[in-house]
Amino acid sequence: MPRTAVTRLPERQRVERALLDALIDTARVAHVGFSGEDGHPVVLPTAVARDADVVLLHGSTGSRWMRRVAGGVPVCVAISALDGLVVARCAFESSFAYRSAVVFGSCTRLEGAAKARGLDCLVDALLPGRRDEIRPPSPAELRRTLVLALPIAEWSLKVADQWPEDGPGDLAGDAWAGVVPLVTAAGTPLASPDLRAGIPLPDSVRALLRPGAPG
Amino acid sequence: MPRTAVTRLPERQRVERALLDALIDTARVAHVGFSGEDGHPVVLPTAVARDADVVLLHGSTGSRWMRRVAGGVPVCVAISALDGLVVARCAFESSFAYRSAVVFGSCTRLEGAAKARGLDCLVDALLPGRRDEIRPPSPAELRRTLVLALPIAEWSLKVADQWPEDGPGDLAGDAWAGVVPLVTAAGTPLASPDLRAGIPLPDSVRALLRPGAPG
Repeated sequence: MPRTAVTRLPERQRVERALLDALIDTARVAHVGFSGEDGHPVVLPTAVARDADVVLLHGSTGSRWMRRVAGGVPVCVAISALDGLVVARCAFESSFAYRSAVVFGSCTRLEGAAKARGLDCLVDALLPGRRDEIRPPSPAELRRTLVLALPIAEWSLKVADQWPEDGPGDLAGDAWAGVVPLVTAAGTPLASPDLRAGIPLPDSVRALLRPGAPG
Repeated sequence: MPRTAVTRLPERQRVERALLDALIDTARVAHVGFSGEDGHPVVLPTAVARDADVVLLHGSTGSRWMRRVAGGVPVCVAISALDGLVVARCAFESSFAYRSAVVFGSCTRLEGAAKARGLDCLVDALLPGRRDEIRPPSPAELRRTLVLALPIAEWSLKVADQWPEDGPGDLAGDAWAGVVPLVTAAGTPLASPDLRAGIPLPDSVRALLRPGAPG
């Protein structure tokens, strides 16, 4: 059986690539799993973005785990969104509303123009509009940054968006049931203590504060 | 070097157990990494709670990966919180405010009273107060549920809560810098379509809606 097959609750597996893309594009963080130097599994969170058919990760050349992943070891990149609490009439049927994707494969290290483009994608994804407000990366900064690409080829997506599914006995009882959405939003921005006077909040940050902006 | 040593930005490593506990206790989801049957790394999200010195996970006996983890394969359980965006005056210094923990080890399967207690801890953690509003699990439900314990023995915690650290050139420039907090909160609860008339929102859900309630 391929590792992308969903064996538990297979009705939740979704195969539409657009749904995967939407999840990656709104996620800020992925969890990267790989085998450590001692063979023990390791999972670490890191920023994530997408460029067409690749998942993009980045980090410092000083990061030991990033260098290991850049070397092409097999990885599993998990991208998850917790969308709500499914509050059933009993604990057994209670669960989460979520979207959960895994992408399997090996990363390659981007160089040159592809690396610069990958970094642009990451900056655009993490704070849309910010790139127009700041200087481009310097050659030294680029040298100190690893940009990794994982092909979106072997992947799996599970979406749980159901109502509670209580049995007849519980349905007749007095317990409440429903879904409580969970929403992430930007709070009030805090200016750096060393910010020069007279510098206004930039458009990129102001856009995060609009009601309904992706948190 | 032990795998719990933070080699990149070691000044961010925190060794206070209370900080780890606070992170686990407010997290709803952990990412569990292990080696799949084919040797490829796998990372999957799942609900998480803590009981004293163990991390608790649970799932269906019908879940293949949960059964594998229950069998005692080495795991890495990552618990992460994205607390904000660190918006520097250049992309290179921009980053996340976060708390990131990993717990290494192997899970054991809880049985009997320990299993019932573990499930209670999970329900209490995922929706505090809910356990008083619903019936206890039935013997059949307990039989169909795996409850796993991972000792909190080999762990590592990294906390990034710094202001942007731009260099002198950027400090003198016109770009804004600061931190944008990210906050998760409960939205308006949606009653199940099959909810009987006259059943009010329970206290457990109402508590989630209080301003400042943990999202």
